[in-house]
Amino acid sequence: MSALLGAAVLALAGPALAQLEGRGFPECHQGPLKNNTVCDTSADPLDRAIALIKTFTLEEKLNNTGSTSPGVPRLGLPAYTWWNEALHGVADSPGVNFSDVGDFSYATSFPEPIVMGAAFDDELIRAVATVVSTEARAFNNFDRAGLDFWTPNINPYKDPRWGRGLETPGEDPFHIASYVHNLIDGLQGGYDPKYKRVVATCKHFVGYDMESWNGNYRYQWDAQISSQDLVEYYMPPFQSCARDSNVGAFMCSYNAVNGRPTCADPYLLNDILREHWGWTEEQQWVTSDCDAVQNVFYPHKFTETREEAVAAALNAGTDIDCGTYYQHHLPAAYEQGLFNESTLDQALVRQYSSLVRLGYFDGMAVPYRNLTFSDVSTPHAQQLAHRAAAEGIVLLKNDGTLPLKIGSDMTIALVGDWANATTQMQGNYEGPAPYLHGPVYGANQTGATVLVANQPGGQGDPTTDNWRPIWEYAEQADVIVYAGGIDLTVAEEGMDRVSIDWTGAQLDVIGQLAMYGKPMFVMQMGDQVDNTPIIQNPNISALIWGGYPGQDGGLALFDIVTGKVAPAGRLPVTQYPAAYISQIPMTDMTLRPNATTGSPGRTYQWYTGEPVFEFGSGLHYTNFSISFANDLPHNHHSSSSCYNISDLTGDCNEQYKDRCAFATIPLDVHNTGAVTSDYVALGFLTGCHGPQPYPRKRLRAYKRLHGIAPGSTQTAAVNLTLGSLARVDDYGNTVLYPGDYALMIDTQPLAMMNFSLTGEAVTLDYWPQPPVKRVQENGYWVGGYGSTQEEGLLADGTVPGVM
Amino acid sequence: MSALLGAAVLALAGPALAQLEGRGFPECHQGPLKNNTVCDTSADPLDRAIALIKTFTLEEKLNNTGSTSPGVPRLGLPAYTWWNEALHGVADSPGVNFSDVGDFSYATSFPEPIVMGAAFDDELIRAVATVVSTEARAFNNFDRAGLDFWTPNINPYKDPRWGRGLETPGEDPFHIASYVHNLIDGLQGGYDPKYKRVVATCKHFVGYDMESWNGNYRYQWDAQISSQDLVEYYMPPFQSCARDSNVGAFMCSYNAVNGRPTCADPYLLNDILREHWGWTEEQQWVTSDCDAVQNVFYPHKFTETREEAVAAALNAGTDIDCGTYYQHHLPAAYEQGLFNESTLDQALVRQYSSLVRLGYFDGMAVPYRNLTFSDVSTPHAQQLAHRAAAEGIVLLKNDGTLPLKIGSDMTIALVGDWANATTQMQGNYEGPAPYLHGPVYGANQTGATVLVANQPGGQGDPTTDNWRPIWEYAEQADVIVYAGGIDLTVAEEGMDRVSIDWTGAQLDVIGQLAMYGKPMFVMQMGDQVDNTPIIQNPNISALIWGGYPGQDGGLALFDIVTGKVAPAGRLPVTQYPAAYISQIPMTDMTLRPNATTGSPGRTYQWYTGEPVFEFGSGLHYTNFSISFANDLPHNHHSSSSCYNISDLTGDCNEQYKDRCAFATIPLDVHNTGAVTSDYVALGFLTGCHGPQPYPRKRLRAYKRLHGIAPGSTQTAAVNLTLGSLARVDDYGNTVLYPGDYALMIDTQPLAMMNFSLTGEAVTLDYWPQPPVKRVQENGYWVGGYGSTQEEGLLADGTVPGVM
Repeated sequence: MSALLGAAVLALAGPALAQLEGRGFPECHQGPLKNNTVCDTSADPLDRAIALIKTFTLEEKLNNTGSTSPGVPRLGLPAYTWWNEALHGVADSPGVNFSDVGDFSYATSFPEPIVMGAAFDDELIRAVATVVSTEARAFNNFDRAGLDFWTPNINPYKDPRWGRGLETPGEDPFHIASYVHNLIDGLQGGYDPKYKRVVATCKHFVGYDMESWNGNYRYQWDAQISSQDLVEYYMPPFQSCARDSNVGAFMCSYNAVNGRPTCADPYLLNDILREHWGWTEEQQWVTSDCDAVQNVFYPHKFTETREEAVAAALNAGTDIDCGTYYQHHLPAAYEQGLFNESTLDQALVRQYSSLVRLGYFDGMAVPYRNLTFSDVSTPHAQQLAHRAAAEGIVLLKNDGTLPLKIGSDMTIALVGDWANATTQMQGNYEGPAPYLHGPVYGANQTGATVLVANQPGGQGDPTTDNWRPIWEYAEQADVIVYAGGIDLTVAEEGMDRVSIDWTGAQLDVIGQLAMYGKPMFVMQMGDQVDNTPIIQNPNISALIWGGYPGQDGGLALFDIVTGKVAPAGRLPVTQYPAAYISQIPMTDMTLRPNATTGSPGRTYQWYTGEPVFEFGSGLHYTNFSISFANDLPHNHHSSSSCYNISDLTGDCNEQYKDRCAFATIPLDVHNTGAVTSDYVALGFLTGCHGPQPYPRKRLRAYKRLHGIAPGSTQTAAVNLTLGSLARVDDYGNTVLYPGDYALMIDTQPLAMMNFSLTGEAVTLDYWPQPPVKRVQENGYWVGGYGSTQEEGLLADGTVPGVM
Repeated sequence: MSALLGAAVLALAGPALAQLEGRGFPECHQGPLKNNTVCDTSADPLDRAIALIKTFTLEEKLNNTGSTSPGVPRLGLPAYTWWNEALHGVADSPGVNFSDVGDFSYATSFPEPIVMGAAFDDELIRAVATVVSTEARAFNNFDRAGLDFWTPNINPYKDPRWGRGLETPGEDPFHIASYVHNLIDGLQGGYDPKYKRVVATCKHFVGYDMESWNGNYRYQWDAQISSQDLVEYYMPPFQSCARDSNVGAFMCSYNAVNGRPTCADPYLLNDILREHWGWTEEQQWVTSDCDAVQNVFYPHKFTETREEAVAAALNAGTDIDCGTYYQHHLPAAYEQGLFNESTLDQALVRQYSSLVRLGYFDGMAVPYRNLTFSDVSTPHAQQLAHRAAAEGIVLLKNDGTLPLKIGSDMTIALVGDWANATTQMQGNYEGPAPYLHGPVYGANQTGATVLVANQPGGQGDPTTDNWRPIWEYAEQADVIVYAGGIDLTVAEEGMDRVSIDWTGAQLDVIGQLAMYGKPMFVMQMGDQVDNTPIIQNPNISALIWGGYPGQDGGLALFDIVTGKVAPAGRLPVTQYPAAYISQIPMTDMTLRPNATTGSPGRTYQWYTGEPVFEFGSGLHYTNFSISFANDLPHNHHSSSSCYNISDLTGDCNEQYKDRCAFATIPLDVHNTGAVTSDYVALGFLTGCHGPQPYPRKRLRAYKRLHGIAPGSTQTAAVNLTLGSLARVDDYGNTVLYPGDYALMIDTQPLAMMNFSLTGEAVTLDYWPQPPVKRVQENGYWVGGYGSTQEEGLLADGTVPGVM
């Protein structure tokens, strides 16, 4: 225990501390480690971790390489479970142990990230993440959770079929990069705090966005991705984590990229992640996805033996194996000379440096140690869960019926497979919530009489006998609400969707309900489905997308219906027509349309078809107009400002040139309608610059303004960097190109500003080039293994794993 | 109540009968119907049904068109539930009501049909079906089940991904046709009994064998099938039901065929089913699959209104709507003049004629009325469930280790996701079983010590921490058994498989277990997966396919391991390499290979690749040789018998010329080994005759011989009809062609006989030609509706449903 703690604190903390140590913390107070540097809070974190690992025997080192670490009992170093989840609140997982009743029997359950992404509100995300890390610390203090959380999931949601799209903030890499920066800030407690609140884990690095499609499984799939697509689309969220947000951990993914399983790929884990992005602190570690090290051997068949597989992963820079494959097979691999003990040491030092930075060895010196269950599900947290849902819900159609005053003299018929939703609202990676306020609860709060017909339910199962009450209720109602869509039964981890349409049964019920000629709304829940029939039916008054809105989602939905909350969420993904999925294989990683393959392209940047709703769609109860508060700097031609590229880059002294400022452009947002409302300013760039083809547009800035009163104005600032303007060439280099640029505000632009860059193109970032592509022979991968950084890892100079 | 019942019977039956009537039987004894002809057991069944329906009001008629019929309370006609299930034993379903405990809390649970199909034993199937219908009658007598069972599922299992393949006897249409003939015989109690035991329902008519694939859902899918494929492959099981087995009911399917939803297709339901196959008895009815009438409207969009949809289905010949769509929408359709009351009457007469033939109105006169729960799960039924599993299990690899004597001094390590199987063994469409003897039970019966490690489980979920006990147990064991494969979590109704491979985790565990150098067997459970790695691994002693073996499956498996039962089952499907499913879309209904689309063809008849195991594969513990007991008739050249086609057809006086005999060829099967064993004689035809391309071979006869002792001989007879020899032309006509023919016995032929047909080709069956193909315009189907038989159905001569 640190000698720095005052006597008064000790008097209070002594018993509590002993209790803490008994609850799974290291015995720094009185155990064998008390004189080891690891327990010296004044020492350098790296030195502390090295001192600890030096006391390990080789066997103890090999034993502590899995997600469930046995620790070292003889040293008083307890077992530790690295695998904890908190995607949208502390969640069930191997390291998290909810109580059955009473304290720690629940945690705040926020909406799924796809809904929080729709809020386009970075400040909200930071606040949510701060609540999550606070609650996590409270759980940790009572040995009900670890300090490492394997969240966020930031693979861009590019294919509407993906079963895990709900876990992500959406399809746009700029949006995700900004979202995750704020999320990590809230989870970890700032960029480089003395004590991290918790360690976040950016996953899944990289190119993972398919569970199973047409014989391709995530565990064995080899994603073919060009350097251009990789840098432009798949990497930005991860660059944000590693280079710009100082995240504590990464998770490599199940899939291979261009022939190499990511967990055994030194090009990704060393050349890109650590070297190019400077993610080289001793406290930063990489875990495999669960059993992904096993998958290097089977089913990837990347190596010929299991020992080569574990060595390939360890040597590539995978520090923790989620699973037991390291523990089971590293001993034999070591005997075969497939890795050096120093590599093992490095992995362990990274792990324990990270725990040092979390205050794992520092007892009550850590400020978060006083958090208890009274800090869980506080009124603030509950209000924030409601706000997150209300901000993320998106109004997609409204014939003017909404907002609707609903009084106690009215009757609502609430129909559909989400009418009675409880845990459905949480989606996946959830824990027990303090309450689950579904649509029925929300409807009841209006004071109206509510008639609930939860059927026809689910995804296309026959409804047969369950129709009858629906028509009675519709007959009796003043307002008809259909709450339905998809849920985890058709899109989950391990299961991609096979349809992005409503089922026939759902559309049939909706269509019949619309015939009653009453105010009739559809709340479309879960992921996006093709809403064309809802839009086209003139008897459906309104359409609201509710996603997976979390513990207070039902209330938030009805608050929007009644106008208690004005909607301002925006779709964070493209809503495609149902036929889209038959036009492009899930395995096609290319973003751009392709006449040869027939691909219509992916995401709002490249899709050549007519979306049902485009990325960023979302209606309000009021109207806004936008004006630029002033012209661009340097130049005073608002519609044709010109900038010389060499001037722009010449002024730039940043280590990473894409971060250099281009301009900060203030926007005035005027509420010209009659209802106080939030507004999300979306700034898209378009224009002819850089390599062809040109994207339709690219999101480069966003800002949510809150509570703009009728007739009033608020100002947002669009910050454009040189990186904002740059595009990516065939080699993955980020280049500032001469050409025409236009900044458009909102999806149907409410304001536009044009400018031009002149002079020679300048490369802002040179992308490390990948090694030679590997090919399969006789079912095994051969050739081109490793990158320059990896050579010489073995004493005899051979390349591990492949002879 | 019939006056024909004697006083003695009445004295006994009176109270029992009243009790029966109180339990959901019509009140013929004392109710308003007692003087109605329907209660006169001496009257003609058709007259009885007509008399009943004449007493219905129009509203009562319209109300009794769904799967849950309210009956007519004022007449003492009780509610009736048409939807009962009994795929492999009486099963949970709307009409079947198991008790929680005690009597009627279980029924015999046989293996899934895919396993019973592998037995290739028609006599077994008839015996199983007789037990099922006996138990169903016992349930019915106590108002725990109806008398109509929506079984069998006989769509040929042509794509290994299909989630409902386990419900079928396999991929071969001849095999299924013969299987189902015997099944219906057992279920219904013969071809035309006075009282049917139960009514069987052949489903799903026709072309249904995909749940969901790449955006195609069963509810909306339009299968494009040529007349040749239809007659050759998709129709034979249904022809067997309708034309050759006098089945009581058909179910039309969700999908469309060539532009028409089957439930609204008069070509299929009238021209083919009723007219061409002569399925025109008054007691024969068609039900829709559940909500398939709704699906005609949505999502097929076959009609522009819901009223047109119900009228189209009723007019086409769908007599019962599984669902409430008829009940909800027929009234308005009637008001709109979209169907005649006589059509409605016909549907109701069919339903109630069928109930008359079941003795529904005949009280204790029905011989099955005395069956009670003591007739359920009898020792005979239990023994039969064991036998069905033992006969269906297939031995695929054996290095001589099996059979293995296992004594009480030995230890078995039983590992894998099926090690602890209970309900897994039943598959789907199951009811509670009297017991579930899984692999653990079977292993325990050997007397050995059994160490069970049920993990790593499931389909590819991370195994992480669950590996550890496996290696300990393998270390301790004398014999290692891996029991695993797939189950309903990856292939079920509504969900097709996305992989036909073992998961990497499974193969990894299997591979590591094989390294212990001990006797090691794999029991591959569920549907087929690519067993290449098991075959190629020399350290794996044996491979057994166990499928879904039912209530006694675990015991049957170990009885084969120990040699208590000698294996003789044969694969009823092709086992394809894992890559097969990426070579052909599920939606491709074509059987023949196609160079343009890259299709390698389907089923053993057409697949051009190298199967992992071909259809009919199965090893024994002994050896067999085959000889033809005598030459072909007419001609005495055993290797080149020649027949003139006009002679063959000239001798034929059958109504259906394909039924005419060609030859009965006795086979002598000699057991040349040392173990008593069953043997399945499979007779394939091959040769150059008829339209090109020629199939590799076609199964045309099979027979299971039982208990052939070492050194002894049993005789089977191969019955070939003219239909056996015929092939199908482009128009679907069945034609006897001149050319060379060879009869091969077994997959690696143990005997072969050649013959030739000469002269002109003769058509045995002219296939009714389909109406003009329909096409979609603006999302709705137009053009070519209906066939000649349907014209003039409406009073004004218009075609219903499409203007």
